[in-house]
Amino acid sequence: MSVIYDKVALIGLGLIASSMHWAMKRGGVAGSVTGYARSSETRETARKIGLCDAVFDTLEEVVEDADLIVLATPVGAMGAVMKQIAAHLKPGATVIDVGSVKQTVIAEVQPLIPAGVHFVPCHPMAGTEHSGPEAGFATLFDNRWCLIVPPKGSDADAVARQEQYWQALGAQTEIMEAEHHDMVCAVVSHIPHLIAYTMVGVADDLRRVSDQEVIKFSAAGFRDFTRIAASDPTMWRDVFLTNKDATIEMLGRFTEELFALQRAIRTGDGDQLHAYFTHTRAIRRGILEAGQDTDKPDFGRVQVER
Amino acid sequence: MSVIYDKVALIGLGLIASSMHWAMKRGGVAGSVTGYARSSETRETARKIGLCDAVFDTLEEVVEDADLIVLATPVGAMGAVMKQIAAHLKPGATVIDVGSVKQTVIAEVQPLIPAGVHFVPCHPMAGTEHSGPEAGFATLFDNRWCLIVPPKGSDADAVARQEQYWQALGAQTEIMEAEHHDMVCAVVSHIPHLIAYTMVGVADDLRRVSDQEVIKFSAAGFRDFTRIAASDPTMWRDVFLTNKDATIEMLGRFTEELFALQRAIRTGDGDQLHAYFTHTRAIRRGILEAGQDTDKPDFGRVQVER
Repeated sequence: MSVIYDKVALIGLGLIASSMHWAMKRGGVAGSVTGYARSSETRETARKIGLCDAVFDTLEEVVEDADLIVLATPVGAMGAVMKQIAAHLKPGATVIDVGSVKQTVIAEVQPLIPAGVHFVPCHPMAGTEHSGPEAGFATLFDNRWCLIVPPKGSDADAVARQEQYWQALGAQTEIMEAEHHDMVCAVVSHIPHLIAYTMVGVADDLRRVSDQEVIKFSAAGFRDFTRIAASDPTMWRDVFLTNKDATIEMLGRFTEELFALQRAIRTGDGDQLHAYFTHTRAIRRGILEAGQDTDKPDFGRVQVER
Repeated sequence: MSVIYDKVALIGLGLIASSMHWAMKRGGVAGSVTGYARSSETRETARKIGLCDAVFDTLEEVVEDADLIVLATPVGAMGAVMKQIAAHLKPGATVIDVGSVKQTVIAEVQPLIPAGVHFVPCHPMAGTEHSGPEAGFATLFDNRWCLIVPPKGSDADAVARQEQYWQALGAQTEIMEAEHHDMVCAVVSHIPHLIAYTMVGVADDLRRVSDQEVIKFSAAGFRDFTRIAASDPTMWRDVFLTNKDATIEMLGRFTEELFALQRAIRTGDGDQLHAYFTHTRAIRRGILEAGQDTDKPDFGRVQVER
């Protein structure tokens, strides 16, 4: 592998940025990596675990002479960060963001990009329920998708280099239009997270079933929801606030469908339920075939030979 | 380990029964195990993979001289099976079911139990998204819970022996009252499954986002739903039809809560969202502490050292 960007600056040192760091080191993708986080505690942790070649206390320092600047803060903070760094960017540099929402980010960040600097919005679709500088690992992006969402008139070379960059980090890339991106993500990510948060909240709020029971017996299905309902609250608050339209549209579809199934239960329409449940199995099969999950029983709990 | 039941008969050879078989063999819990399945194809598969010491083509044969009879069919079929085997049970034998719903099963099966035979409803809370005789494995119940739901007036020795039996299969046991059982399971299992089925159905039904996109980008959250939405359609149809009241009550709570979050998104109430998402994290922590899930990033995908 060879260096794609000589100097990379990471702004925000959470799960995604720290994983990018380790993946860049693994692939020899960057000459050097600098890092910045708003909280001094995060910066200290980063220094302690060797995250980034240098961790700086100011935005001005971290972007100095950088060829690639990565906005890896919650999406709600990206506009403010961009405002602060705009005057300090090197001509020819590329700014990317790694946010989960694209229309709002483009609307906020794009106007602040100085002439001669490229902006390529990216969305690496990978994550775990963990957050913070210690959560990252080099293989996070392996075989996952990174959606690249260039605004109209983007520099073709800057975009092509981003494709090359994410592929060097282990990901597959796809170019997508911003509005479509936000709708796709509402379906495959934002609504599932909101539903999981809701289900966990409901379970906790019940008077008739204790928290202890919910926790003890969680392996029966509930557990799968709690994993994504443990994701970073600030990130997800910003996602829902900035992808409001697609989220609310999809929620409408979801509740409509849920009410139809509820009605089938109430009226005892077993045929409808059976047909519905049979159909959803096929989608799972597609995901396994696409290599986006493992087929191991119970997510890799140790299986003893018969 | 020592033999707890000399002769065990398994009726229905799906994921649960086949896992019970391998777990009994692992622990030396049964003298011998006979099996029956309604479909000749299932019986053939069972014979081919060595599931059960003998597989029989009739219910009369499989229960002959059995000390423990396990009803492991979908819950909707248990009454009919019980009707057929009642006259062929040995005095002193114990019948258990392993269904996910208890009030309905007790109402249907209990009146058919002959004098001198014990009935101990059980619910091993373990499973994977796979079904059929080849899906079972010996460790399925390890560290999972088996809820034991004896009707009033149950024989104390028969119940105690069932506790001992499930513990020998690797599970922890808890005695629970039937109505409470059905409510707990609606929360931790039935509603999560219904929601997962719904979410997968919605994603599939959209015209604006292709199935291929849903499948490709599923790692972003959606994937966790598809696993449980791939569970056995017949089993789950019966669960919802037989646990109708608790399911509909819990669905009401869920949609109420979902609408509250939807309203927070629409009105831009970031504080409410953040507080809600922060709270749900704590429940996840409880599940990890209770040993009901692993904390590995992304369910045990290989993590390369930094």
